[in-house]
Parts: sequence; C-alpha cells; structure tokens
Amino acid sequence: MKIGLIGLGKMGFNLAQNLLDNKHEVAAFDLNADAVESIKNLGAEGFTSLNELVQSLPTPRVLWIMVPHGVVDVVLDQLKTTLSKGDIVIEAGNSHYKESIRRYEEMKEFGISYLDAGTSGGMEGARHGACYMVGGDPEAWSVVEPVFRDTAVENGYLYAGKAGSGHYLKMVHNGIEYGFMAAIGEGFEVLEKSSFDFDYEQVARVWNNGSVIRSWLMGLTERAFSKDAKLDEIKGIMHSSGEGKWTVEEALDLQTATPVIALSLLMRYRSLDQDTFNGKVVAALRNEFGGHAVEKN
Amino acid sequence: MKIGLIGLGKMGFNLAQNLLDNKHEVAAFDLNADAVESIKNLGAEGFTSLNELVQSLPTPRVLWIMVPHGVVDVVLDQLKTTLSKGDIVIEAGNSHYKESIRRYEEMKEFGISYLDAGTSGGMEGARHGACYMVGGDPEAWSVVEPVFRDTAVENGYLYAGKAGSGHYLKMVHNGIEYGFMAAIGEGFEVLEKSSFDFDYEQVARVWNNGSVIRSWLMGLTERAFSKDAKLDEIKGIMHSSGEGKWTVEEALDLQTATPVIALSLLMRYRSLDQDTFNGKVVAALRNEFGGHAVEKN
Repeated sequence: MKIGLIGLGKMGFNLAQNLLDNKHEVAAFDLNADAVESIKNLGAEGFTSLNELVQSLPTPRVLWIMVPHGVVDVVLDQLKTTLSKGDIVIEAGNSHYKESIRRYEEMKEFGISYLDAGTSGGMEGARHGACYMVGGDPEAWSVVEPVFRDTAVENGYLYAGKAGSGHYLKMVHNGIEYGFMAAIGEGFEVLEKSSFDFDYEQVARVWNNGSVIRSWLMGLTERAFSKDAKLDEIKGIMHSSGEGKWTVEEALDLQTATPVIALSLLMRYRSLDQDTFNGKVVAALRNEFGGHAVEKN
Repeated sequence: MKIGLIGLGKMGFNLAQNLLDNKHEVAAFDLNADAVESIKNLGAEGFTSLNELVQSLPTPRVLWIMVPHGVVDVVLDQLKTTLSKGDIVIEAGNSHYKESIRRYEEMKEFGISYLDAGTSGGMEGARHGACYMVGGDPEAWSVVEPVFRDTAVENGYLYAGKAGSGHYLKMVHNGIEYGFMAAIGEGFEVLEKSSFDFDYEQVARVWNNGSVIRSWLMGLTERAFSKDAKLDEIKGIMHSSGEGKWTVEEALDLQTATPVIALSLLMRYRSLDQDTFNGKVVAALRNEFGGHAVEKN
C-alpha cells in the first residue's frame, strides 16, 4: 500500500524505514529538507510541500501523521482543503483522546475517515516492530489493517473500537508505565540507601530473568546501569510529557481511585524542584510549635 | 550434587523435580507421607524423619530448606543438633532479611554455613527455571553455585553479597512487584469506568507485545482475562503475605520516600474492608459542617 507519511522526526523516520522494509510505498513529507533527502535515499518519495505530497498519492489516499501533538491541528487544517472524500487519515502521535474524537468529527464533515492510533515501543519499536492501539470506523480500519500488521511486532496491534479508543488505551498504557517506572525507581532507592553494597546492573539483570517483575523496562534498567553503574552522570529530575497527567485527570473525572499512578506523577513533579515552599512551610511550623531546628539557607 | 531438600510443598515439590531433571540427587523430607511417596516415585530418596534425611547425606552436607517462613526456626533448631561443621544450609523461602542475618550468625556458631536465597518466578519458575538472589559467605556460595545455575533460568541467579543480601533483594523485588500490580490494576479500573467498551484480554495482549509495559505480569493479566473476560467470578480483595509490608517498613527505617510502593500496600489493606470507619468519620464530618447527605446503613 502507498502511505503518505507526514513527519520525519525520530518516530516518523524510523516508521518510514519500517514501512519500506515491509514493501510498502512511502511518500514522505517534512519541512526539514535533510530528513526528506535521507528518506529519498532509502527508497521513498520525498516532499517539503504538504500539497505536493497529497497530489502524489492515488485516491483513496492513506495519510499517516507522525508529528508532535501541538502540530496535528495545523496539519489537519491543511488536509481538510486538499484531501478528497473517502481518504483516510491516521494520526499516530500522542494526542489526548478527546482531541482525537473532536478531530474525527471534524474530518467526518469532509467525508474523510480518521483513525487515532496510539503507538508504543519507542524508536526501536517504530523501526523494527511497534505496538498499536487504534480507534475509529471499522470500514477505514479494514483498509489499513495490513499496514499496521506489517509494521507491528507479532500480536502487537489492536483495533480498539470507536473514535478515541486508540488514544485512550495509549493514555492509560502510559499511566501504567508511570507506575512501573516509579516502583522500579523506588526499589533501587531503597537498595541505594541500604547497608548492602549491590551491583545494580547485576540486580536488574537477575530481576529480568525468571522473576515476577521481568519486563522490558527492567531490561532498560539493566542497560542504563551497564552504561553508568550508579547513574552518577545524570540528575534525578523526572520530566513528563502529558499522558500520565491525562490519565490522572481522567481518573479524577471518573471519580476513580488511582493513587499509585497519581503519586508516580506527583513524585515526578516533586523531582523538578530542588527545594520546596511546601518544605519551608512545614519546617517553619515545626519550629513555631516545637522549637524544632530548621536548616537555614 | 546431592541435595537434602526440606519441604515438599508447592515450591519444594516443583524444585525437587527441577533438581532431578538436572541430574542432581535429591533426598527429600516432608511430614506429608504422600508428598514423600510421590517424589520417591520420580526418582528421589524420601524421608518423613528429618534426622534420617540428615544421616542419609554425605558430608559436607548441603541442605535446601523450602518451608513456610513460620517453620524455618523449628527446622533450624533441629539441624543445629544433627548437622556437622562444614555443612551448608540454604534457606530459599520468603524470610525477612534480618531473620536471615540472625540465623546466619546462629548457624555460624555451629560451624554451619548459611545462605539466604530469595526465590522468584512462582511455581512455574521452581519447576522449569527459577530466579535466585543469594546472600552469605562466598566460600559456601562457590560450593553450591552449580545447583543454582542448573535450576535457574539463564542469567537468573545472583550472588548478592553478605548474609541477608539475598532476602533483602527478594524483599525489594516484591515491593516493586506490588507497584507493578497496583499500576496494572488501576489502569484497568480506569478502562472499566470509561465510556469505551474494551476487550480486556485483547488490551492486555496488545500491551504485552511491543509496548513499553510488556512484562511477565502483563502476560498473566492476559491469561486471567482469557479465563474470565471481566473477572466476574472473583472479588477484588487483595491479600498480601509480608514482603511488601517489609519493604515499606525498611523504607521508613531508612527515611526513604517510596509513596508508590507504600500506596500499593495500603490499597491492598483498603480492599480487605467492605466499608471503613474512616469513611464513616469523613461522611459524618461533611454532614456536621455542611449538612451534606450521608448514606445510611
């Protein structure tokens, strides 16, 4: 199948290679001419004009958007005026599911099918076999399913149901990921503060072979410690990019108790501050009522 | 190597088969004569007398204890009077690491080497390849390492260091496991309360193939949903057997923030109560100050 791929960033470029490996035709667009040139050298058509990309595709067209979530609506506004009825748009970035439902409705008015595809597995997944959760109309899904099957790992894709369900699953997946990562981090924090002298790479290695917590993330933990035995080279500042927060917001809207995922997120926020006003207030109060010592700046 | 195996429960019986598969000689003890008879039929020697087991072994003896943690000291008291200097005792159950250090010291007075072996992987692991974290003296370790290597999965064993370090790692492993399980549970709770209609077996399946949260536990999640699509047959009561609590107690002693593991444990406790006194107090207070409705028994 010929895919019009929009976006040749870290994920898009790897996906383009994955599509080519699987004998799909790729026509790719990016504003970055170097990225376009690189993918042309690997056998794709390349464009720095979105309109030219669209015109190059046979109808009904299949467009695959892999751009930062802030750019999705800009791309869609342009596609609304250039695509034809019956074309299919796949949005495979990390969008909020409510945005995906809105976009599905908007594209429907133009007769364009819109699929929201949550994508997991990182750059390695995009390159060699991703994990997809896809929502939207089943008719559009049946047309593009082969492309997902070919670029996913075995059993690594799911048609999840109506519009929004793909990005909903991806959101909750990331919430669970926050919990996994927090638990791993806390466990190693206990080891580091203990009176034992553990080799963390070896600990992660044994935990990743035969134990109940064996997991891809534990493998990455082993890899990280193999590069830097005590992680001395980096700070413990944990940024986040939205999906964990969305999961907690969704849980709040649903009045659902998700303390572990919520605390995973809040502890990331805590890590952003070297000192806290919160801590000053509590230290000051202990001093006020009990005369307990405070540490001065 | 000839192993004196003490305990033919769920873990011990599977381990005995694993040892036999790997061409080790097994002399097994259990009070349960049926279990002893069964393992004899599979090629082991069997005893319902601990003293007879000990007398059957060549010196230096290697004893492997696989009994509930409440019974370990009973077994050790008997071994102290029957073992000889230079014998090696492996305790492979779920003991608190401080108990293991105490027992190591006590056995040392009798000239007996004591290894604390945390064992993970469940019954399937004990049968076909476990994961071991072992603490104690390196001299004793070097004698028995082949037995661990043979009965573990590949790369699935670690000599972790001084006495207590094996069970310490197992304790923290279980703390991380609590966090993983809580995050998975919370994620599916959000899905269940959402407006989407997901097939949970399929969700767990796709999350276990290519995603960032792929893991042995996600595979077990898929298996559980394959047997009971909505888990209608069971209650959401989450018992616990100690190691999570020990991890949190250790974190408290170390003044280490482990909110995710702690909340995983506390939410298990919450699940034990159908209603809470806590909830009654808060509901009563809302009624007192704001006239908010309470729900009556």
